[in-house]
Amino acid sequence: MGEFRLDPITARWVIISNEKSLGPKDYKVENPDIRGEVCPFCEGNEKLTPPEVDADRPTGTEPDTPGWITRTVPNKYPILENESNLDKAGRGIFDMMNGVGQHEVIIESPDHNKQLADLSIEQIIKVINVYKKRSIELSRDERFKYVLIFKNYGLSAGASLEHSHTQLISLPIVPKRVMEEFKCVQDYYAYKERCILCDIVRQEDEYRHREVFDNKDFIAFCPFASRSPFEISIIPRKHKAYFTDITDSEIESFAKILKDTLTRIKKVLGNPPYNFIIHNNSVNGENIECYHWHVELMPKLSKIAGFEWGTGFYINPTPPELASRYLREVK
Amino acid sequence: MGEFRLDPITARWVIISNEKSLGPKDYKVENPDIRGEVCPFCEGNEKLTPPEVDADRPTGTEPDTPGWITRTVPNKYPILENESNLDKAGRGIFDMMNGVGQHEVIIESPDHNKQLADLSIEQIIKVINVYKKRSIELSRDERFKYVLIFKNYGLSAGASLEHSHTQLISLPIVPKRVMEEFKCVQDYYAYKERCILCDIVRQEDEYRHREVFDNKDFIAFCPFASRSPFEISIIPRKHKAYFTDITDSEIESFAKILKDTLTRIKKVLGNPPYNFIIHNNSVNGENIECYHWHVELMPKLSKIAGFEWGTGFYINPTPPELASRYLREVK
Repeated sequence: MGEFRLDPITARWVIISNEKSLGPKDYKVENPDIRGEVCPFCEGNEKLTPPEVDADRPTGTEPDTPGWITRTVPNKYPILENESNLDKAGRGIFDMMNGVGQHEVIIESPDHNKQLADLSIEQIIKVINVYKKRSIELSRDERFKYVLIFKNYGLSAGASLEHSHTQLISLPIVPKRVMEEFKCVQDYYAYKERCILCDIVRQEDEYRHREVFDNKDFIAFCPFASRSPFEISIIPRKHKAYFTDITDSEIESFAKILKDTLTRIKKVLGNPPYNFIIHNNSVNGENIECYHWHVELMPKLSKIAGFEWGTGFYINPTPPELASRYLREVK
Repeated sequence: MGEFRLDPITARWVIISNEKSLGPKDYKVENPDIRGEVCPFCEGNEKLTPPEVDADRPTGTEPDTPGWITRTVPNKYPILENESNLDKAGRGIFDMMNGVGQHEVIIESPDHNKQLADLSIEQIIKVINVYKKRSIELSRDERFKYVLIFKNYGLSAGASLEHSHTQLISLPIVPKRVMEEFKCVQDYYAYKERCILCDIVRQEDEYRHREVFDNKDFIAFCPFASRSPFEISIIPRKHKAYFTDITDSEIESFAKILKDTLTRIKKVLGNPPYNFIIHNNSVNGENIECYHWHVELMPKLSKIAGFEWGTGFYINPTPPELASRYLREVK
């Protein structure tokens, strides 16, 4: 089982995998081919994944058989495992805890050749419904404090399989990054009695020079302090602390803006690798009502190098006002 | 000129480059060749760089002519520029300041075909002396709060030129990453009246299972909470708040442990790309006497993907106890 270790110099946790540890030889292949011979996510290959935990499939069909529309399975190589109780310990001056968590893969469609941007709005609605359903399900386990939904598309953005999928992982601690957001959101609220994300939505709506696309429920724009070129924020117009409170009508709007944004990125940047992350509230603990869930979408175009490691800053050579113009104007 | 922008949701600054902004076409080349036709860092090509600010060269020779042993020049494409006063501003709810700073390149040797690991101890001593000399020089400018020294080796670690070089950049703010270290170091000191890095050195010396190499003045080991596989910390045994207080005898020990560690990485991992960063105290401001300078060295073997972006955590599939064994045992 993996374990969490706390770096005492930065108060940052890392997850160390102790079981299938990788040695030097595992790192020597620079560009492994992610198109394996047999895709475990394709219809007909259901036996190649762990047994499904959820599927949208015709009534009467058996689990782990063909015919499904979306399918959720435990990750075969989980970052964290769900088999024991949370166990905290010190080791000399160091702190650690075991790597308890649940790590699932949402297979977005049976079609190997369609990426998320290529799916129909109806299919993307089904995918978002799975995000919501599994998030609610995993939040029920009181050992967990956070449920993270993220997608890696393309090898250099961390995808190890080509077939379109999203990952969902529950964590026993609220991640550092989320705590930083909580602090800023709370400080702003304490000072102004307003939500900072609501204020940002208002300002971007008015300014428009960073906007990419919007609809009645969401706005997509390149954020003022974009860390990476062509970074996009997708924020719901209505203040909601929890992603899981999204309504059916909002899911439809979310599906539309997601497809639109991904399609623009694909056209402008030539199908780049990307990551997207749903930033959600924590669960089973200190939940922040003034938080406002949102999506972060980053094409993988630049590198993390010595400057970024040394400072925690990012250097972005494409101003968001320029990036959003390309994305807005593409046909 | 670039500008600093503050992300109000995470209190993280980014640097946006406004001048030589990159559009979509600039990102489409996946693997540019970093071996240009003419190397601007080679002897004889001195006119291809901005005029040198420092050089170790025989007395009587002219600046920007051949014959040098090390040579420091302003970066031709600086992240930040040194031409105006620091200027802070708000833009709606957003905060920014102009990108004032000084960005230099230290060319480590005239030999195009030798990387830092291949240089003689005598030459590495000269390089470290330049790190020290330029850090002191740049600290004199009171607009700057931090001087960062870092090295990117190899394309995927961010190097854009093959000829061995280190970068040095002065910044008008103390980086987020350094502030995080300051907070932990100060909290620990307030609680125990001891330096946390001194305690770590003591513990690693005793434990030895994470050690890579050591000498009378330095210890190199894979840190307990390594973020990336084969990450190495190099820490001076003696508590010193400032890298710039390093003595001649310590510089010799530092050169030896650096060459040894880089050679081990090269042998075990097959010459991987890497980043190294000198973590130093801040200057001209709130300097932390209980800080302890050190070096962070990370081979570039894993990817930053959705999980890392979403959490601020890292997943490391190679436990430091395993990595250090490979590094220790290599011949």
